[in-house]
Amino acid sequence: MNKFHSAPLTAVKLADKFFAPRQQQSFSVTIPSALDKCYETGRIEAFKLSWKEGAPNRPHIFWDSDVAKVLEGMAYSLALKPDAELEKVYDDLVDLIASSQQPDGYLNSAITTNKQQGNDNRWQVLRTNHELYCAGHLMEAAVAGFEALGKRKLLDVMCRYADYIDSVFGYGEGKRYGIPGHPEIELALVKLYRATGNEKYLRLSKYFIDARGTDPEFFYKEEPQMPYNVPPQYRIGIINTIAEMPLREQTEVYGHAVRALYLLCGMADVAGLTDDETLLEACRRLYRNIVDKRMYITGGVGTSFDFERFTVDYDLPNDTRGYSESCANMALALFCRRMLDITGQREYADTMERVLFNGALSGIDLHGDHFFYPNYLEVNDNFVEYHAGRKTRQPWFNCSCCPTSYSRFLPQLGSFMWSVNDDMVRLEIPAANKLTLPGRMIEVSGNYPFEDKFTVKINSGEKFKLAVRIPGFAQSASFMLNGEKINMPAIDGYAEFDRQWHEGDEIICHLDMPFEFIRSHRKVTMNRGKVAVMRGPVVYCCENTDNPCDVSALFAASGSGFTAVELPGGYPAVKFNGFMEKLDGEELYTNKVPEYVPCRITAIPYALWQNRGETNMSVWLPEML
Amino acid sequence: MNKFHSAPLTAVKLADKFFAPRQQQSFSVTIPSALDKCYETGRIEAFKLSWKEGAPNRPHIFWDSDVAKVLEGMAYSLALKPDAELEKVYDDLVDLIASSQQPDGYLNSAITTNKQQGNDNRWQVLRTNHELYCAGHLMEAAVAGFEALGKRKLLDVMCRYADYIDSVFGYGEGKRYGIPGHPEIELALVKLYRATGNEKYLRLSKYFIDARGTDPEFFYKEEPQMPYNVPPQYRIGIINTIAEMPLREQTEVYGHAVRALYLLCGMADVAGLTDDETLLEACRRLYRNIVDKRMYITGGVGTSFDFERFTVDYDLPNDTRGYSESCANMALALFCRRMLDITGQREYADTMERVLFNGALSGIDLHGDHFFYPNYLEVNDNFVEYHAGRKTRQPWFNCSCCPTSYSRFLPQLGSFMWSVNDDMVRLEIPAANKLTLPGRMIEVSGNYPFEDKFTVKINSGEKFKLAVRIPGFAQSASFMLNGEKINMPAIDGYAEFDRQWHEGDEIICHLDMPFEFIRSHRKVTMNRGKVAVMRGPVVYCCENTDNPCDVSALFAASGSGFTAVELPGGYPAVKFNGFMEKLDGEELYTNKVPEYVPCRITAIPYALWQNRGETNMSVWLPEML
Repeated sequence: MNKFHSAPLTAVKLADKFFAPRQQQSFSVTIPSALDKCYETGRIEAFKLSWKEGAPNRPHIFWDSDVAKVLEGMAYSLALKPDAELEKVYDDLVDLIASSQQPDGYLNSAITTNKQQGNDNRWQVLRTNHELYCAGHLMEAAVAGFEALGKRKLLDVMCRYADYIDSVFGYGEGKRYGIPGHPEIELALVKLYRATGNEKYLRLSKYFIDARGTDPEFFYKEEPQMPYNVPPQYRIGIINTIAEMPLREQTEVYGHAVRALYLLCGMADVAGLTDDETLLEACRRLYRNIVDKRMYITGGVGTSFDFERFTVDYDLPNDTRGYSESCANMALALFCRRMLDITGQREYADTMERVLFNGALSGIDLHGDHFFYPNYLEVNDNFVEYHAGRKTRQPWFNCSCCPTSYSRFLPQLGSFMWSVNDDMVRLEIPAANKLTLPGRMIEVSGNYPFEDKFTVKINSGEKFKLAVRIPGFAQSASFMLNGEKINMPAIDGYAEFDRQWHEGDEIICHLDMPFEFIRSHRKVTMNRGKVAVMRGPVVYCCENTDNPCDVSALFAASGSGFTAVELPGGYPAVKFNGFMEKLDGEELYTNKVPEYVPCRITAIPYALWQNRGETNMSVWLPEML
Repeated sequence: MNKFHSAPLTAVKLADKFFAPRQQQSFSVTIPSALDKCYETGRIEAFKLSWKEGAPNRPHIFWDSDVAKVLEGMAYSLALKPDAELEKVYDDLVDLIASSQQPDGYLNSAITTNKQQGNDNRWQVLRTNHELYCAGHLMEAAVAGFEALGKRKLLDVMCRYADYIDSVFGYGEGKRYGIPGHPEIELALVKLYRATGNEKYLRLSKYFIDARGTDPEFFYKEEPQMPYNVPPQYRIGIINTIAEMPLREQTEVYGHAVRALYLLCGMADVAGLTDDETLLEACRRLYRNIVDKRMYITGGVGTSFDFERFTVDYDLPNDTRGYSESCANMALALFCRRMLDITGQREYADTMERVLFNGALSGIDLHGDHFFYPNYLEVNDNFVEYHAGRKTRQPWFNCSCCPTSYSRFLPQLGSFMWSVNDDMVRLEIPAANKLTLPGRMIEVSGNYPFEDKFTVKINSGEKFKLAVRIPGFAQSASFMLNGEKINMPAIDGYAEFDRQWHEGDEIICHLDMPFEFIRSHRKVTMNRGKVAVMRGPVVYCCENTDNPCDVSALFAASGSGFTAVELPGGYPAVKFNGFMEKLDGEELYTNKVPEYVPCRITAIPYALWQNRGETNMSVWLPEML
């Protein structure tokens, strides 16, 4: 039922100031440094299966996924920027992984090496052992290598593994019930199906989705096989697995945010390919629950550090009690991309764009090798460290999912710009870039979203429909075609040009996208009386670096105008009026009345914060009326 | 070095509207219902030592402490309100507990019954097995029975147990290193010493305090003996034990709040009795850290539900990410009482009073049998349940420390009103009550702190010093002696009357204590731009029940006056001006501007909230300037 698909990876050349530099850094910094870390920490060595009890670097149950994600990124990187040396590393790595495959097709460095429970430790604890999760990431890597580079070796290995998994799980004779504790394989099997055309993989993906939640006790029943007795107070963690009810019956998003979003990606994939309207309806319903009630203004998701999970409607803490994990945010963009493909509806592009310009890229520094695990919206002197949350980006984590996620996500950024089908090309995000498809050569220029104007130049003299998205935030949009003003009615949120194009045709688009104060729904109690600044899809935040006092003492002046400025280093910033609160004394509680001193406040795009040293930061400011 | 002590339990008869009804309910409701729960849940049966593997109600490592706390409360209750039937239950219970003592003096129902690891499971895991903690509570119960009722049986039992513990732990020949994972025995041993005069118990208490933190690895070394492998992510829980450094070197309060405060009580006790100035200085330093940087306006302490612990300076979340556990708050009052006794300094009385009128009693309902475990300062529709936190008070908990703590705390409320020594009687909290000591019969009347005036009538014709505390919050105080205005300079915060009294002498005291808006230190970021309402020591809060809209939509009008009112049910309330925010639409984020509608806001004392059904509540309101 899919209406669109992304443009192929190599068809989009990014040229903007926001995405393009990140992608370039991923080739030169993010991927190489993640690869180094995988070597250093023993993650790659682990595939030699030579680890012995007592040796250092004991293979861990999620290690294979990290290597897989870097490998996936390497494939994209090699396709976009060929590099013979890197390709040799890539091929050797594939050979090593292939060599670790067991005779029956099974492949997992940690489980195969940790033989304490004998070979039967396979599939013993699906809840936490992450075998199916790792398999999924390796499948994604295999498909990336095949589609981007035409390399079959890992694809064949992973098909054999998938065949073996299919022989173990399912409804048929001799198969057992099972679902992954951490979803991922669902979407990966669909990629494998798309790459190979083998419907078995689609059926297995559908099985994992259909079976989920039909036995809500399943993960509890595994506890006797777990390597430690689960202290009772931690059993609540099982909610993270999202297996309380069949997925088609779910009305609210819950559990671990990364798992929830990966699962939604798989659900959307299967729904789109099997015309499963009930499943698609569940995707729509859960999307609405996220976007209407459980998403940070930055597009970040998962609002509790406690189990990295979704909590309840309108619970969106800004400080370190919140979360907004980088991986979850990237996964929301991937889910929106799928829903946009299936439905063609602009709202998914709106959310996708919000995530991309804010919460998805705030997790990595501009240089490309330091990472936030959770992406807080407020960081102050009273910073409480929970789990992997830090005040500055870190080079690596014990559970290092985020750095390796960026290794594969950044090279794919171009895939979010366009939607295509046989009939039409749709410009979803008009950041400067060049699309090169047969008969559809199009160049977007300008400095969107930091300017309100962009130009679309058509370099193919053919007839096709070109649609330009008019974002939900735009109060109006106007267009000039070859210098003439042209009236374009928005059709479902898009301006659709259907014509015979001539090389050099040029559309200048102008969106009404002023800086604005944005408020939260009244039930978001942590933001009562507070405003954030946005321009179009970009959320701004205040850092101490640019302001006359600690950001926690700033008040925004209601009704202030905005002045766009560029800060040293090329930061697109904004200035507006506000006040500094001054309250003398050091009492914790006082009846003294503060003084409010007028000042100018400076804010920069949220995704760029903490690139100039450690500082306090806040997205939401109390408003002085 | 102690300068003062509390008046004996039976010397104070409470007659005010705030404390006296709570104490009465503790006799008729709180203690009987906690006792019932102890029977129902098997906690009392456990002392028969007849539990067998597989039977229900497996004795738990903290059960003995619950029974001990109820027993302690029963002793006070019997002293203040004799009851032959209850006394029979008390005696039988003491007999049962005595019967569970092992030949060598050891006494613990859970460890003795759970023989999986043989008798050697004694003292195997001091970090979590709570044996020394339970022993401490049983010692407190024993001393209560002896001092309040003159009953020796349990005291003798617990002296034997203490003798045995002393033979196990310490520096001497044949003894081992050990400290309790949950402090409590330190303060209890001091009570045992005071009751018996046996210095061995004071020395053992001092040992546990001196030894603590001298081996920071001690609790880690116990892990091989623990009944489950501790998942690595939960090892941070060890910070809760407060054993990272010697106590005299500690500069900031950290770890589990109840443990931290029980430990501080023990430290203060030992410091006072041994003239240990370094230890007392540590108590002072940690007290200042609490009061200046880590205490809710309600006197609540422990600001993270995660491990129920202290976090960092100025981190005081109001919602369910915060904590303010009932037991910790009561313990802060007990610590302040000790520091007040030792130093005579008013600041400890100020904090003690703040806790008593707010965070210490908010944990129990007016009827006396429903409890908050954590005492949040804000409860909204987006309530996230963490651990034992609930939107309404509960009759019991799985780990039911708070209900049993109230069983022993409420009967002791009178002990906070006065400080006495041979020379002087000091009125610390002028809630209506009658003091009856030889030659010092004094009656306080009035409706403090809900009125600014109270009367002190002396019914003994003797010469002694009577000091009346002038609270830190009072901008001024004035006094009338027998109808004549008298100028009383405050000496270190007290008005000191040194004279030959005549029966019927009457002092009328007037404190300047208006309703006021109170603000937080600028670093308490969660309270930026917000105010709370206080009058004297009492913190007020808004419930939906009394207000024209959900409390989350209320703004306080800067500069508003206040009108004291009484609500149905006798609630002493206050009204002031404010605004309701109205923002149309259901978007999570919007550029729409809200309307602010003037309204009257009603607030009631925080300690009385949620006594009229489930409702939203907030202590802090954003301020409209």
